[in-house]
Amino acid sequence: MADHTPDLSTPTILAATRDGQDLSAAQIGAFIRGVVDGSVTRAQAAAWLAFVYQRGLSDEATVALTDIMTRSGDRLSWPEAGGPIVDKHSTGGVGDKVSLVLAPLWAELGFRVPMISGRGLAHTGGTLDKLESISGFRCDLDIAELQAVLADVGCFISGQTAELAPADRFLYALRDETQTVASEPLVTSSILSKKLAEGLDRLVLDVKYGSGAFFKERAAAAALARRLEAVSGALGTPARAMLTPMNEPLGEAVGNALEVEESIRCLRGEGPADLHELVVRLADHPDADAVLRSGRALARFERMVAAQGGDLSKRLKGSKDVVEHVVEASVGGRVTAVDALSVGRAAFRLGAGRAQAGEPVHHGVGVRVHTAIGRVVVPGEPVFTVVHANRGLDEALSLLRRGLTVVSE
Amino acid sequence: MADHTPDLSTPTILAATRDGQDLSAAQIGAFIRGVVDGSVTRAQAAAWLAFVYQRGLSDEATVALTDIMTRSGDRLSWPEAGGPIVDKHSTGGVGDKVSLVLAPLWAELGFRVPMISGRGLAHTGGTLDKLESISGFRCDLDIAELQAVLADVGCFISGQTAELAPADRFLYALRDETQTVASEPLVTSSILSKKLAEGLDRLVLDVKYGSGAFFKERAAAAALARRLEAVSGALGTPARAMLTPMNEPLGEAVGNALEVEESIRCLRGEGPADLHELVVRLADHPDADAVLRSGRALARFERMVAAQGGDLSKRLKGSKDVVEHVVEASVGGRVTAVDALSVGRAAFRLGAGRAQAGEPVHHGVGVRVHTAIGRVVVPGEPVFTVVHANRGLDEALSLLRRGLTVVSE
Repeated sequence: MADHTPDLSTPTILAATRDGQDLSAAQIGAFIRGVVDGSVTRAQAAAWLAFVYQRGLSDEATVALTDIMTRSGDRLSWPEAGGPIVDKHSTGGVGDKVSLVLAPLWAELGFRVPMISGRGLAHTGGTLDKLESISGFRCDLDIAELQAVLADVGCFISGQTAELAPADRFLYALRDETQTVASEPLVTSSILSKKLAEGLDRLVLDVKYGSGAFFKERAAAAALARRLEAVSGALGTPARAMLTPMNEPLGEAVGNALEVEESIRCLRGEGPADLHELVVRLADHPDADAVLRSGRALARFERMVAAQGGDLSKRLKGSKDVVEHVVEASVGGRVTAVDALSVGRAAFRLGAGRAQAGEPVHHGVGVRVHTAIGRVVVPGEPVFTVVHANRGLDEALSLLRRGLTVVSE
Repeated sequence: MADHTPDLSTPTILAATRDGQDLSAAQIGAFIRGVVDGSVTRAQAAAWLAFVYQRGLSDEATVALTDIMTRSGDRLSWPEAGGPIVDKHSTGGVGDKVSLVLAPLWAELGFRVPMISGRGLAHTGGTLDKLESISGFRCDLDIAELQAVLADVGCFISGQTAELAPADRFLYALRDETQTVASEPLVTSSILSKKLAEGLDRLVLDVKYGSGAFFKERAAAAALARRLEAVSGALGTPARAMLTPMNEPLGEAVGNALEVEESIRCLRGEGPADLHELVVRLADHPDADAVLRSGRALARFERMVAAQGGDLSKRLKGSKDVVEHVVEASVGGRVTAVDALSVGRAAFRLGAGRAQAGEPVHHGVGVRVHTAIGRVVVPGEPVFTVVHANRGLDEALSLLRRGLTVVSE
């Protein structure tokens, strides 16, 4: 239960947060313990989140918050012997299939990559949904299986079976309910608590900005990047946060199986330039470009898929019950926008995403983007291919048309 | 349930409040209806209160909030025939027995005064607790009894038996839980919703500032006063809000029966000058001073007490089982502080108040204050008489000594 000494009482902590005063690590600890054990009410936790949203938290308080959230559940650990343990987190974007390429690339470079990933919601695709396009692929490995795959292959991408940072799950649900998601210290502690519970030696963070990103403004993303590095470092895990734009979709494919196909092309060294370059940048290793171009990382991906029960010799799920619809440019000129959010929403309308946690997704549907900001198009040139299953086509077409801006020169 | 059109959805209203955008009357209406019917969660209501605390509300939104809270329960109404219906509300102070004098004075001046009052909590005395020092006095009159007493005597002071502004009760409990009480628009709507449900023609508001008041700073009290007048006026009840200091106790007596005795002296025209002057000022009528000095209002008070079942011929409750302890000045000099909050807390320690709603109070105990800011005292001169019942005396004495500041000249 919450401590009853005056400084650690819930009313005192609420009032201090409300008034923008620095909170001590002991105060953060007492409050979050109270949230977890129920002695702080849900209403008090909600008001606290609203105060933090408005007044912020110091680095010291954010470190304490992240630390207690990390300690709220299980913590993974790996054998001493072997390469450094690394992972990557992205704040999320449209067409972002970087994890599928980066995990085997890092493994090929000698790192061990225990990647715990999530599912998609709304217009954001989920790494696990993408991988489950592969027949038989399992994302529910238990701890013994995770250990075995990591030892054998050097990487895995799986879902959260252990209870990593359960305090974050509680707080995230409450932030979602109270419109307090987009708070820099709260985002920082939410991201890092789950990643630090993975027992990493090093963490790379892809902090996106732009129309398709969580933070639209570069300055807000930069502040988040700085905070993520500071807090992770203070808790003993060196982190590097890179700012990357997310105005147009990453690569050409948006949709589960479509993105797996594109990831395989990239692993073969034949991926779209923007995806290839981002993977190399996030890999943060002098040999990353050469290894990716060599195609050697594809074999590592195939070993990982096989170790997780997947069969790449079979057709990807949903890929035979779809129809392609080509969208042509109606006017000629220079492309000034291929709005990532619009494309993500279009894929969502087609069934690639889910509105509520637990809903199924269609693995085959999505959008292929054939143009990009800065290119010149002529009337009648294909700009999108909509891969659909007779659901949501009209809304998707409308979203794509509105998302594409062509300026005649 | 909450409206589901986009602008009236709970997430939209929460985000707009969070970002300091103006809320429409329709948005306030939808949100508060949702709070009352449970479609807005307690956590969402708590976050909304926190956002309002930080970002404020426009006058228009505060009017809408007050209006829907007023309409959330019963509304009293009175016969057309008779004098104007008036009432007073005070933001609360130590030794504030103004209601006991003002209600009969106004009735004597030809007004009708349907005063619905409350009980004390912590160091704040409650008007009903004071009146219940009178043997037999009833504060639980039903609507028919209220109508009869008002018609017969011209005033009553009773508790809330009808459901006046139940939305306020819900929101107040949540504000108390979340440290969002001291918000000007929330205080405004809380005060006015209950008073406007009384069916008044005119309202007088005593907005106190100083060490013993809710708002310590005059500027904050002035902002509240302006807002109270604006919102009440916009809802059709002209209101006059007066700023009055509350650094030292009002009058000489603090404690239930002690304050009734002092009120009777004041009604006789023999009250302490500060109390007499404040009552006259709040009465806001050219004949108030003369009528109060004449002692005619005492008979009106006696009629009200009799109509509510009270018997002034009997001793006041608790007054025979108390002991007096005189506190003398230890040094001589000019008094620069008789801290109202300290005196209020001393009376609370003696048993005059309650820590939790529903607890009994001791009617006989309290403090008589024999000095005031600006007066000169000599060593050994009596400055307080503590009226106690062998409980809390040491703490009370300590509080009183710390509350008195004497500067040698």
